[in-house]
Amino acid sequence: MDYRETLQAAWRRMERLTKPPRSLGHLEEVAVRLAAIQGRLKPELGLGAVVVAAADHGVVAEGVSAYPQEVTRQMVLNFLRGGAAINQFARVAECEVYVLDVGVKGELPQHPRLLSRKVREGTDNLAQGPAMSLEEAERALQAGREAARQAIAQGATLLAAGDMGIGNTTAAAALTAALLGLPPEAVVGRGTGVGEEGLRRKREAVARALARLRPGMGPLEVAAQVGGLELLAIAGIYLEGYEAGLPLVLDGFPVTSGALLAWRLAPGIREHLFAGHLSREPGHRRQLEAMDLKPLLDLDLALGEGTGAVLAMPLLRAAARILHMATFEEAGVSDRP
Amino acid sequence: MDYRETLQAAWRRMERLTKPPRSLGHLEEVAVRLAAIQGRLKPELGLGAVVVAAADHGVVAEGVSAYPQEVTRQMVLNFLRGGAAINQFARVAECEVYVLDVGVKGELPQHPRLLSRKVREGTDNLAQGPAMSLEEAERALQAGREAARQAIAQGATLLAAGDMGIGNTTAAAALTAALLGLPPEAVVGRGTGVGEEGLRRKREAVARALARLRPGMGPLEVAAQVGGLELLAIAGIYLEGYEAGLPLVLDGFPVTSGALLAWRLAPGIREHLFAGHLSREPGHRRQLEAMDLKPLLDLDLALGEGTGAVLAMPLLRAAARILHMATFEEAGVSDRP
Repeated sequence: MDYRETLQAAWRRMERLTKPPRSLGHLEEVAVRLAAIQGRLKPELGLGAVVVAAADHGVVAEGVSAYPQEVTRQMVLNFLRGGAAINQFARVAECEVYVLDVGVKGELPQHPRLLSRKVREGTDNLAQGPAMSLEEAERALQAGREAARQAIAQGATLLAAGDMGIGNTTAAAALTAALLGLPPEAVVGRGTGVGEEGLRRKREAVARALARLRPGMGPLEVAAQVGGLELLAIAGIYLEGYEAGLPLVLDGFPVTSGALLAWRLAPGIREHLFAGHLSREPGHRRQLEAMDLKPLLDLDLALGEGTGAVLAMPLLRAAARILHMATFEEAGVSDRP
Repeated sequence: MDYRETLQAAWRRMERLTKPPRSLGHLEEVAVRLAAIQGRLKPELGLGAVVVAAADHGVVAEGVSAYPQEVTRQMVLNFLRGGAAINQFARVAECEVYVLDVGVKGELPQHPRLLSRKVREGTDNLAQGPAMSLEEAERALQAGREAARQAIAQGATLLAAGDMGIGNTTAAAALTAALLGLPPEAVVGRGTGVGEEGLRRKREAVARALARLRPGMGPLEVAAQVGGLELLAIAGIYLEGYEAGLPLVLDGFPVTSGALLAWRLAPGIREHLFAGHLSREPGHRRQLEAMDLKPLLDLDLALGEGTGAVLAMPLLRAAARILHMATFEEAGVSDRP
């Protein structure tokens, strides 16, 4: 059966399950979408995977982050040692953590969970000129695809992307504003916690990047202008997952900016996307609204790394199980008169 | 360390973990509360349990439910066969399902997951007179305690209650209105989906029950007036879990009415309660506000059975893991200047 047919058949089955109609709210929609994506009335979700794409950002020179740039590399080491939030959440969500270095400044050790595909050691400053060349943007996207292929080959049935990159909410804001035609104020937030002055510098940096864009630029050209390398990789991760037929879970603001890019490159991806959560970062709501996605969680999170996506994985698994319930007929339960 | 000391020490540890301050939002509060409940800085949650308490309601004679009364018994059979939503969700949440018959009309077979403690075959009609005697109320509460003891003895580290009882949102509304001093309109909703006329009959039934209450009646006397047997059992389940030192997860409107009763009987239980979700049933918000609890999920659910509680269990497990993250010092990550 094709997507639409399975979707309709799954809704018909949903109406016969032993529960009041629509009593499982938002999860019912998730369930039938999972059925349609998998092309079967009783969807099954096994192992999850999150690919955390990491890279540095030249725009940190503008004073847009509360943390020093070296934290990108230090946090990658933390991911590899299992000490970060994403590692802890993945443990309880039957999810594997993979790390992709697509542009971290400095050396990183070899590690079975680390894919090293450094395109360059961080972007150029997006407030001053193009973040990277078009060819580099293409390579970053391909690196994301490769990391996703690896995760899928190792058994992932549910795929998320995560992000690590000091300065990346500035790049994500620029990318989002450019792709959705929004002003900087609509998409710039406090990220990891900058003050008023930092917020003003972020808006200014984004405005300067947007001023360089020209009508007729394609999505990839726009992304090369603003970066970041990990946001392009995230687009690649989701595109690869989409082509492999997997359900895809979104995280917060940087990850969803990468997903917006993927959506512009392949609009059909929308059917595979699930919004894991609604971030505290204000631009995230605009991103989700643009793709007409409703978040599963709203816990005032603002961390990234894929944490909000991985937290939602058990909800997706539960939703898939709804369609395994007994029907009124199967269970001998009386329906409403 | 006692509760307050552990809570404070856990907040201090939280501030040193490798993430921006407060970036894990609501889950940070859950994490430190779990630490304080368990009396250790690195809380651990293992197996969960949900005890689904089932009973019938004489008030169905007033036409307050969309479903026939026999559905209570039929759904218990469905729980025992694994065909219901609660069974499916428990599978993916590392949670055991136990069923307690505290007053279902009709015979039920023996089953290893069923505790048979029928106090009577359903309550009397709360719109016409007392739902049960005070002695029956006490027995129903004790049956809940016994079921919780059984679940804890079998390894539960996290406890939820579920409910099954056609007509029970009417009893839950009466109990909630009585305990919180609210008018029927504030707490009566559509339950499993009654129309306008059913809604009017529910409000009328609740108003008649409330008119029988006298100043000076204790919480258990009030509960005997309105029922239901499973709501008293739910109070017992939570009281037992509280005394055993477990974190307790709330479900929707009927379950939370039982929790309100437990809270009136033992106010200290508040520190052990976590609101699994916010139900579509309008009175649920009033219940959670009364106990100052913030729901983890808001998915427009209105099913009961403990489903919203069990869906939240993976979030509680993830929250517990936050305090297992590395600190800035342990991970060699630079903090904000």
